[in-house]
Amino acid sequence: MKNRATPRTKVKEEDALVEQFGRIQSRTNVASSPNKSLHVAIGDDAAVWQPRAGHETILTCDWFLGGTHFLADTHPPESIGWKCLVRASSDVTAMGAQPRCFLLSLALPSTRTGAWLEQFLRGLKRASQALQCPIAGGDTTRQNEILINITVVGECKRGRAILRSGARAGDAIFVTGRLGEAEYGLRLLQRAPKRMDIHDQRLRKHLFPEPRLAAGLWLAKHGLATAMMDLSDGLSSDLPRLCNASAVGARIHRELLPCVAIAGRDRLKRFDAREFALHGGDDYELLFTTGPKDVARIPKTIGRVPVTRVGEITSQKNILLISERGIYEALKKKGWDPFRRT
Amino acid sequence: MKNRATPRTKVKEEDALVEQFGRIQSRTNVASSPNKSLHVAIGDDAAVWQPRAGHETILTCDWFLGGTHFLADTHPPESIGWKCLVRASSDVTAMGAQPRCFLLSLALPSTRTGAWLEQFLRGLKRASQALQCPIAGGDTTRQNEILINITVVGECKRGRAILRSGARAGDAIFVTGRLGEAEYGLRLLQRAPKRMDIHDQRLRKHLFPEPRLAAGLWLAKHGLATAMMDLSDGLSSDLPRLCNASAVGARIHRELLPCVAIAGRDRLKRFDAREFALHGGDDYELLFTTGPKDVARIPKTIGRVPVTRVGEITSQKNILLISERGIYEALKKKGWDPFRRT
Repeated sequence: MKNRATPRTKVKEEDALVEQFGRIQSRTNVASSPNKSLHVAIGDDAAVWQPRAGHETILTCDWFLGGTHFLADTHPPESIGWKCLVRASSDVTAMGAQPRCFLLSLALPSTRTGAWLEQFLRGLKRASQALQCPIAGGDTTRQNEILINITVVGECKRGRAILRSGARAGDAIFVTGRLGEAEYGLRLLQRAPKRMDIHDQRLRKHLFPEPRLAAGLWLAKHGLATAMMDLSDGLSSDLPRLCNASAVGARIHRELLPCVAIAGRDRLKRFDAREFALHGGDDYELLFTTGPKDVARIPKTIGRVPVTRVGEITSQKNILLISERGIYEALKKKGWDPFRRT
Repeated sequence: MKNRATPRTKVKEEDALVEQFGRIQSRTNVASSPNKSLHVAIGDDAAVWQPRAGHETILTCDWFLGGTHFLADTHPPESIGWKCLVRASSDVTAMGAQPRCFLLSLALPSTRTGAWLEQFLRGLKRASQALQCPIAGGDTTRQNEILINITVVGECKRGRAILRSGARAGDAIFVTGRLGEAEYGLRLLQRAPKRMDIHDQRLRKHLFPEPRLAAGLWLAKHGLATAMMDLSDGLSSDLPRLCNASAVGARIHRELLPCVAIAGRDRLKRFDAREFALHGGDDYELLFTTGPKDVARIPKTIGRVPVTRVGEITSQKNILLISERGIYEALKKKGWDPFRRT
């Protein structure tokens, strides 16, 4: 039953790995940060956590799997470490909440327990510091593929979490940032995985996305979002989820979409910025709705990130895309679904 | 980057699977149970949770991977569903805390989204009901192997979690149940995976382990354990972890070990009950220590589960096994470690 195959290189035993994970925390941010809510962290059977008074706990978990969500031989380990925490935290951000600590479940081939793991943990530590979100525990085991699962624990004021289900007909639909930037980076990397420089700005959003923490917290603080979620699978896949939870429909105006800027040298590659914006995954921007009387209170930017009105919620339960000339068509789900035939 | 291989059978899309997971909950226990702490459960970006007043939150996560922790073609899906939640909850139990809800991360081949998934969810639902621990959220994706990660959220009275680090020289060491029972079942199944009846009592502990919830809660309530953990990798691997966390050593008396009873018909198989008890994994019994003045207060059974004194904590930081004739030897780690050469 148990996998007793002999590893090919000298590997660390499980306890040594757990100790190594623990160093992310002690070197960084538990002792020095204001995060006093984490009473017991890595090293025991479980972590002990308590949010601040008047707050409640937000919980989410997220797969990040070699072969499905990333390619171990193409993606730099530092990006994998950064992105696994940021994308999981994005779900907490999308509730208008603040990530506070996380659990790391990591399964590795023996051959990845050396330099690869060091670089992975460096990326993870950077994300952990950027988010002020220390490690609280985890589980590690051996597997042929690199498998990551992250649980993020957040907090928000009691009763103030922004759900997917609060959108009403007449609400305006907004998105943060520019959509399709991650898809653009992905496509470039797919074309020439060996030739790309990982510091190339066109790859930034794909390799090192940033969660929209400031925007999420601002919207929660001012009570301006009736519904919110993050864009992880692409607008055409995620918007129907928000509409479904709220029992409403939506209209998106194609010309309002804040699309990725395709660099001049990539114009001949037949990249379509609007297609990327509608269907590209992995952007981790926020999608939210605001009641008609509050629309004027939504600023053009929150913490330097643009906020753009792209459409409105309708009582009719379909999702329509409206062209510049006012022609309607159904917006088909072409975003990322691991189970869909493509 | 993304796995775009065409599945061979008709599969459900991701949203349909999430809906199916949600049914574990609505059919069972959220509405009808006293678990009012779960304000938002499956279907949103994240779950919202709050423990009862005066309590704090316990968090743990646990891998359960096809090919490493179970074999998809040998182990019944109902057992996999049951066991994944019970083994993850065992870490909460081992803090003297009560499991309250869980997050399920499940990655599946397309071929497992039909009957296999139904049976898996049936086992998971049974465990969820037995533990009064409803699903709060999760993540699902496609992968070639069946991959499971469970996060369990528990609660205990503030400041009352029982850690690994509280054992002191002179404390008595206790275990619940009989050790090696899961290893016995595993060995039988390894010998004849096709011929075994999954209802055979000898396989029960391996396929359908039970967390020692009553014992853990009783010990926490009465403040009688100085340190506690669960036995997941085997006594010889887990006891050093408790000792290491407490900066102590231990002596185990071989003749005191409550060993698995090997059935008469298996006597010729050269199964060694003591070896199973010392090194066998997956028992999910509790290992705890009690101060000298409290030893007499530990009952012989808690909720029908035997509680046995097996040794004592020492100031010398080694782990010794003492034979019937008083001969000492170092207790070598031979329990389950996925990274150890075997």
